[in-house]
Amino acid sequence: MKAQPGHFYAVGVGPGAPDLLTLRAARLLEACDAIVAPRSERSEASLVLAIVAEHLRDQEVLEHTYPMARDAERTRASWAEVADWVAPRLARGQCVVQITLGDPMIYSTSSYLLEALRERVSSDLLHVVPGISAMQAAAALFQEDLALQEDRLTLLPATDLEAVAEALARSETVVLYKVAGHLDALIDLLEAKGLLDQARLSFAVEQGRQQLVSDLRLARGTRLGYMSTVMIRTGRRAWA
Amino acid sequence: MKAQPGHFYAVGVGPGAPDLLTLRAARLLEACDAIVAPRSERSEASLVLAIVAEHLRDQEVLEHTYPMARDAERTRASWAEVADWVAPRLARGQCVVQITLGDPMIYSTSSYLLEALRERVSSDLLHVVPGISAMQAAAALFQEDLALQEDRLTLLPATDLEAVAEALARSETVVLYKVAGHLDALIDLLEAKGLLDQARLSFAVEQGRQQLVSDLRLARGTRLGYMSTVMIRTGRRAWA
Repeated sequence: MKAQPGHFYAVGVGPGAPDLLTLRAARLLEACDAIVAPRSERSEASLVLAIVAEHLRDQEVLEHTYPMARDAERTRASWAEVADWVAPRLARGQCVVQITLGDPMIYSTSSYLLEALRERVSSDLLHVVPGISAMQAAAALFQEDLALQEDRLTLLPATDLEAVAEALARSETVVLYKVAGHLDALIDLLEAKGLLDQARLSFAVEQGRQQLVSDLRLARGTRLGYMSTVMIRTGRRAWA
Repeated sequence: MKAQPGHFYAVGVGPGAPDLLTLRAARLLEACDAIVAPRSERSEASLVLAIVAEHLRDQEVLEHTYPMARDAERTRASWAEVADWVAPRLARGQCVVQITLGDPMIYSTSSYLLEALRERVSSDLLHVVPGISAMQAAAALFQEDLALQEDRLTLLPATDLEAVAEALARSETVVLYKVAGHLDALIDLLEAKGLLDQARLSFAVEQGRQQLVSDLRLARGTRLGYMSTVMIRTGRRAWA
C-alpha cells in the first residue's frame, strides 16, 4: 500500500513502542502531507505522536483533543470537525493519515472519523492499516496464548461484570479492556470463580513504563490508568 | 527490543504482505543468525519465508514441515525436533528467530515451539514479538469495526457450530477461523439467524491473491483454502 494523493489512511501505530509500528504505517507516515493525531482530554502530550516521532519531518499536524466522555453526540460532533479539516486537504490532492493507538478497528476513534469522512468523500479514498493491539502486546510479554487449537477468545470491556461472567463461562481466554474503576469488583468475581491464579494484569504495555502483574491479589486497591488490560485463561479446548 | 546473542524470538510476520511486518520483526530478522520457517504439509513453498524475503541475507534457515493433522502427540514430537535444532544454537551464542504467520499467540505453532524450548533453555532467553493477525487485516480491508464502545468480540474456529451459535448470541462481532469444510453449514446457520447480510468472508488476506466476499450467498459450495476468515456483526452495544 503506497500513499496516494487525495487519499486518507486510518493507521494503527501499535501499543506504544516505536518499533511495533508496521513498515506500511512507517512508509505512509513518511510519505503523507498531513497527520491527524488524537490526544485524549486526560493527557498533556499526544502519545501517538511520540510513537511515530522518527517518521515525522515537515508534515502538517492536527492535534485533536477528543472527548473521553461516553457521549455519542459530543463524540460525533468532535469527529465531524476533524473530518471538516481532512476533507478539503484530500480535495486539494493531499494525502492525510490519522494515527491511532493500537488497531483502528478495535475500540478506536478511527471508526468515528471514517464514518464522518464517508459523508464527505468517496469511500474509495479511505483506507485502514491494522496495528498491533494492546491485547497482543500483553499476550506476547506474558507469553500466554490468546487462542490455540479449538479455543475461543473473547474481548470485551470490564464495565459490565455480568457480561464478563458470561464470557468466562464460554471462552478459554477472556481479555478485558477498560479495567480502571472495576478492578476490585473484577478480582472478587475471579476469586469466586477460582480463576484468580489464571489472570494477568498489564498496564501501559510497550509504553516504556509498562507494568505486568501476574498475581492480581497484589493489585487490589490500585488506581489504574485507562490503558489497563486483564487477560484470563479459563481452560483449554484442545483437539479431540 | 534488540537481537541478543543466545536468545530466541517467536516473531509474528503478519498475514502476508511484506509491509505488514513490524519494524521490530524486520530488525530482529536482519540481525539474527538462524531462522526457523514453518511450512505446512499442504504447501510447496514457505509462505512466511516469502513474506520476509527482503530481510534475509546469509542467515541459516531451517524449513520445518509441520503436521497439519489434529494430533497432539505428532505435533509435540515434531516441535521437539525443532527445539533440538534451536537449543544448541542458543547455547553457542547465536540468536534464533522463528517466523510465524499472523501473531504468535493466536492459533500459532509458536506455542508448541516455546513449550518445547522451555524444557531445554531458561525462559529468560525466550521472547515473543506480536504480529498483525488475519482478523485485523480482514477488518481493515472491509473497514468494519471488530469492536467499538461496549462491544464484545469473540474469535473461535468454525469447526463447532454449536459454539458458533453461542458466540453469536453473546457477541457484537464474531470472527471465525478455519472455515474451510464448514462454509455451507455456517451459511445455513447465519441464514436461520437472519445474520447472512452482516457476514463477510475473506480468504488469504494480504497475500496477493486475496478474496473478499461481502455476500456469503455467492460463496455457497466454494472449496476454501484453510486461510479463510468469516466476520459477523450481530449488532452494536453502544454507550448507555
